[in-house]
Amino acid sequence: MKVLIVGGVAGGASAAARLRRLDEKCEIVLLERGEYISFANCGLPYYVGEVIREKNKLVVQTPAAMKARFNIDIRTLNEVEFIDTAKKEVEITDLRTGRKYREKYDKLILSPGAAPIKPPVPGLDAANVFTLRNIPDTYTIKDFVDSRHPKRAVVIGGGFIGVELAENLAERGVKVTLVELANQILGPIDFEMAALVHQYLKEKGIELYLEDGLKSVSHTDKYSIVSLNSKEEIKTDMIVLGIGVTPENKLAKTADLELGERGAIKVNKALQTSNPDIYAVGDAIEVIDFVNGRPTHIPLAGPANKQGRIAANNICGLYEEYPGTQGTSVLKVFDYTVAATGNNEKTLKRFNIPYGKSFTHSLSHAGYYRGATPVSLKILFSPADGKILGAQAVGFQGIEKRIDVIATAIRAGMTVYDLEKLELSYAPPYSSAKDPVNMAGYVAANILKGDCRVIHWHEMNSLDQRASQVVDVRTPLEFGTGSVAGAVNIPIDDLRQRINEIPRDKDVIVYCQVGLRGYLAYRILVQNGYTKVRNLSGGYKTYSTAMG
Amino acid sequence: MKVLIVGGVAGGASAAARLRRLDEKCEIVLLERGEYISFANCGLPYYVGEVIREKNKLVVQTPAAMKARFNIDIRTLNEVEFIDTAKKEVEITDLRTGRKYREKYDKLILSPGAAPIKPPVPGLDAANVFTLRNIPDTYTIKDFVDSRHPKRAVVIGGGFIGVELAENLAERGVKVTLVELANQILGPIDFEMAALVHQYLKEKGIELYLEDGLKSVSHTDKYSIVSLNSKEEIKTDMIVLGIGVTPENKLAKTADLELGERGAIKVNKALQTSNPDIYAVGDAIEVIDFVNGRPTHIPLAGPANKQGRIAANNICGLYEEYPGTQGTSVLKVFDYTVAATGNNEKTLKRFNIPYGKSFTHSLSHAGYYRGATPVSLKILFSPADGKILGAQAVGFQGIEKRIDVIATAIRAGMTVYDLEKLELSYAPPYSSAKDPVNMAGYVAANILKGDCRVIHWHEMNSLDQRASQVVDVRTPLEFGTGSVAGAVNIPIDDLRQRINEIPRDKDVIVYCQVGLRGYLAYRILVQNGYTKVRNLSGGYKTYSTAMG
Ligand SMILES: Cc1cc2nc3c(=O)[nH]c(=O)nc-3n(C[C@H](O)[C@H](O)[C@H](O)COP(=O)(O)OP(=O)(O)OC[C@H]3O[C@@H](n4cnc5c(N)ncnc54)[C@H](O)[C@@H]3O)c2cc1C
Ligand SMILES: Cc1cc2nc3c(=O)[nH]c(=O)nc-3n(C[C@H](O)[C@H](O)[C@H](O)COP(=O)(O)OP(=O)(O)OC[C@H]3O[C@@H](n4cnc5c(N)ncnc54)[C@H](O)[C@@H]3O)c2cc1C
Ligand SMILES: CC(C)(COP(=O)(O)OP(=O)(O)OC[C@H]1O[C@@H](n2cnc3c(N)ncnc32)[C@H](O)[C@@H]1OP(=O)(O)O)[C@@H](O)C(=O)NCCC(=O)NCCS
Ligand SMILES: CC(C)(COP(=O)(O)OP(=O)(O)OC[C@H]1O[C@@H](n2cnc3c(N)ncnc32)[C@H](O)[C@@H]1OP(=O)(O)O)[C@@H](O)C(=O)NCCC(=O)NCCS
Repeated sequence: MKVLIVGGVAGGASAAARLRRLDEKCEIVLLERGEYISFANCGLPYYVGEVIREKNKLVVQTPAAMKARFNIDIRTLNEVEFIDTAKKEVEITDLRTGRKYREKYDKLILSPGAAPIKPPVPGLDAANVFTLRNIPDTYTIKDFVDSRHPKRAVVIGGGFIGVELAENLAERGVKVTLVELANQILGPIDFEMAALVHQYLKEKGIELYLEDGLKSVSHTDKYSIVSLNSKEEIKTDMIVLGIGVTPENKLAKTADLELGERGAIKVNKALQTSNPDIYAVGDAIEVIDFVNGRPTHIPLAGPANKQGRIAANNICGLYEEYPGTQGTSVLKVFDYTVAATGNNEKTLKRFNIPYGKSFTHSLSHAGYYRGATPVSLKILFSPADGKILGAQAVGFQGIEKRIDVIATAIRAGMTVYDLEKLELSYAPPYSSAKDPVNMAGYVAANILKGDCRVIHWHEMNSLDQRASQVVDVRTPLEFGTGSVAGAVNIPIDDLRQRINEIPRDKDVIVYCQVGLRGYLAYRILVQNGYTKVRNLSGGYKTYSTAMG
Repeated sequence: MKVLIVGGVAGGASAAARLRRLDEKCEIVLLERGEYISFANCGLPYYVGEVIREKNKLVVQTPAAMKARFNIDIRTLNEVEFIDTAKKEVEITDLRTGRKYREKYDKLILSPGAAPIKPPVPGLDAANVFTLRNIPDTYTIKDFVDSRHPKRAVVIGGGFIGVELAENLAERGVKVTLVELANQILGPIDFEMAALVHQYLKEKGIELYLEDGLKSVSHTDKYSIVSLNSKEEIKTDMIVLGIGVTPENKLAKTADLELGERGAIKVNKALQTSNPDIYAVGDAIEVIDFVNGRPTHIPLAGPANKQGRIAANNICGLYEEYPGTQGTSVLKVFDYTVAATGNNEKTLKRFNIPYGKSFTHSLSHAGYYRGATPVSLKILFSPADGKILGAQAVGFQGIEKRIDVIATAIRAGMTVYDLEKLELSYAPPYSSAKDPVNMAGYVAANILKGDCRVIHWHEMNSLDQRASQVVDVRTPLEFGTGSVAGAVNIPIDDLRQRINEIPRDKDVIVYCQVGLRGYLAYRILVQNGYTKVRNLSGGYKTYSTAMG
């Protein structure tokens, strides 16, 4: 059997290695148009920031090493131009010589990835405008920073790669401005969670322009000018585009393969394209969203590597289906961690999927043990049965741990009631006897069961002032540092004594800092005959961060 | 309704708080024989080590604060002596005055905990012999260290509390000797995993005596002498007993409640004792092992708190069953973390439950990103269907994250095939595209499917030397630093060329440092007609650590 693989990085190299393990005799040709295979895409921003200092660390396998270990015919600087499905051949250009030649296949695996989007905006073709996808891109940016010592950079797009570059440029002493068209950065999380990150980025000296888009770029001798839709003009020494990626489908089109979501290659559960001899994996393909079952495009390394392995299995007759992608992801933002899994609220809304939500800010570990910090956690769940639909977390510690646990729970089809019961490891340096995930389970289940009716931050503005009373149950000290307009302060520990100060005929909104004491107040009021009480979910923390 | 609660800490205080949230009108009396309620048992060792410095941090709730917030009648220094089930009354001694009185109950919750075991060994009743359970114990130890500046300590028992105390005493500059009767410390993990910790403790200057027991203690003016079964004598300035705990069942016996495993109170799924008006929770009860379904005793704070909540729910008519305990636990050992969930090999053996096992040492995060360290991970699974039975992990980083993920998988009844597919969060500072949990899934599944036959470290000694050939596929450099006796060195990348050096008629054992290259060698050999190949699971790392 002869298998050709197009693309020698995450999906392609994984498929090649697995093929060889399954079949010593198979002829495997890996075709890569770039100079490198098997490189650490995800590490590239950290090379710019000098967190990774050795060039060789960016490469997980060299062609020579991979050849030695896996006996694979590796051809870098060889671009596949065309697929001749009738003849089961591809046409290749050897980029070193310009020579064109053909290669036969029994099976073909496409793992060409996705390319950075370059918008049709004037002024982007300049030596100080960058995108970041591969090792040469990385060297170009790093060399620019090293030799030209830019003082200012504008990053266009607040996705993962944009934010990573913003951080790494800032670590090099560059003053960074981040421009984002939406009202928030980091699409995988929702607005109020991103608001925590906005706040933090500003603390770190990153300038943020939200709800503003790139209109044009112009260049002078000394600097460039980034003009935004808002008419704002930003002087800068360099510009990085991080506005997303688009599936590489040029080759697929030459084979008339069916395309789907955002032009990504359509595959079946076995990762076969519309041509059964051609498999496709990684950033180039459309996948099924594990949570909502709809086609989508989720370019991440974990799925790419796993898909590469599955394609190899299927080619070798070990049938395996790809179960879909849930989009579990994590990002370091200076000392912050942002992680998410499953669907966010924006996605659920878009597809009209009903959902409930909860916010908690439980401590990463026992409060009495040094260094505990809040885990701000949002859970999205089905109002019918409590099935977990998604989760997002932001904070300094233990963030990705909680998301990984919930990602596992989502895979298992668990509900928020199951989260209550999870038995997670506890000692004071690591967690609390009730882990933040358990706590989120309790809180979500209380909402679901109606044991605690909640109001969300974005609903606070539409309260009828005359028909409602907002009660802040924090201490006077906390109340003094900022509160919801119109709130009266009755500390939770005084509530039973002062309950008559709260009107019985009005909608009562209780809140505290994170929601816990508000919940206690809710329980006291409801059992004292108040019928129209709601607790502000996530408390003043979620509210004030989101309100800005 | 009137509910009496015996014990005011993890289980008791949690039950009280939950009861109040569910029922504002209920009369709740919390009876605690000690001076404190709601204290941080798990933090106590860190107060000795001065990681926690403020006394008030050890107390999560004071009686006054808990009264203010939850309106609970809290009686510290009140010991419950006797349960009169006929009258539904308990007899109480007010320890301040000696006064005895009775209190009626509709429902009674017992959360008396478990007491440190003090063996019947001569010489233990001395001012420099300690156990650690509560705040007064902690002050006693801390005061001794502060005022007497002991130079040497002997800790008897290598359980969690013993090891925590060993660490915290060492952090105070005390030279610590740890004595353990078994051949390993930390019972929840198996020998070869504990061997990693033995090695590390020695590096940290802790002296270890394994397979040796305490025989007697004698005291001179200047120091004490700990005599061991081996006749070894250790001079020391202080002695700490950490040989385990025994359920507090004295009170339960006065009510003739049924007892089970190790004298722990028997409860049904609703946490009712054999007397339906009496519930029991926490360290005092027998629980069902979630994995093997058998009764057991697992004294941990997470289960205690959760059980307290469930008992309260059931008393308030919100029926809920406790699903059993799986024993998820974690321990900090200096900069090491040790965590486990589910059954270990010793338990599976004891109950004759068939199992397979795998060892991996994948990196905590991408190797090219600074600070990655190995996650040594053992997975136990059912040979029938791959269902996960247990997992143990040791290392510097990301240890408890992986165990929490697997703990969640165990709750969901997942198999090692499911571990392969988990979509866990990946960016270079946090994980790899294939997380160590995925990798363990692949490795275990390969064993299960017969894609890689393995040999375990403890089977190496019984190899028939003449009928077998051990092949070390590491580099000559690695080989030079130590190898399995009789092994020949054929680096993996040379194996295809040098394959004829390996006899076809012998059992072939391949190994590398952690198992990965050994697996590649296995695949090459088997597909080249070798029929009797096995790969050393966990590689030379697991082997050499376990062999000592
Ligand atoms: C800067 C950066 C940071 C990232 N960080 C993370 C992260 O932290 N976590 C995460 O999960 N994901 C991250 N990703 C995404 C991750 O790298 C991708 O999801 C993954 O690499 C996709 O694998 P792939 O095989 O589909 O494509 P790629 O890894 O991009 O490989 C495709 C290869 O195919 C080659 N190719 C394309 N067309 C042809 C052709 N016609 N002929 C020959 N060769 C061709 C390309 O040159 C390319 O080398 C990051 C990506 C980037 C760029
Ligand atoms: C030093 C130490 C470290 C620990 N570290 C961890 C850890 O890191 N992780 C973990 O999960 N677990 C840990 N534990 C275990 C955890 O603390 C217990 O599992 C948990 O506290 C059990 O809760 P409980 O309510 O059953 O008992 P306890 O919390 O022990 O409370 C029982 C209370 O009942 C009182 N009492 C008993 N009998 C009577 C009576 N007749 N009348 C009145 N009062 C009575 C006792 O005085 C005691 O205060 C640790 C324990 C100790 C001692
Ligand atoms: C302090 C103590 C009395 C607290 O008990 P508790 O009130 O049940 O627990 P918490 O303070 O964690 O609060 C949990 C409750 O708040 C709710 N809650 C938590 N965060 C919330 C939020 N952000 N919004 C709304 N509700 C929230 C939970 O739903 C839960 O209520 P529920 O059980 O009615 O559903 C008890 O845990 C204790 O004594 N601990 C110390 C002893 C101990 O545990 N030792 C061993 C470990 S060191
Ligand atoms: C380097 C690369 C070629 C490796 O591919 P690979 O060989 O499939 O992956 P690994 O080196 O992780 O090895 C995994 C294999 O070793 C096995 N293995 C891992 N640890 C093992 C152990 N301790 N014992 C036995 N087997 C082990 C696994 O079972 C798996 O084999 P299988 O798929 O046949 O079951 C590929 O991952 C790559 O190119 N990566 C860089 C690009 C990239 O991923 N970029 C995006 C992220 S930055």
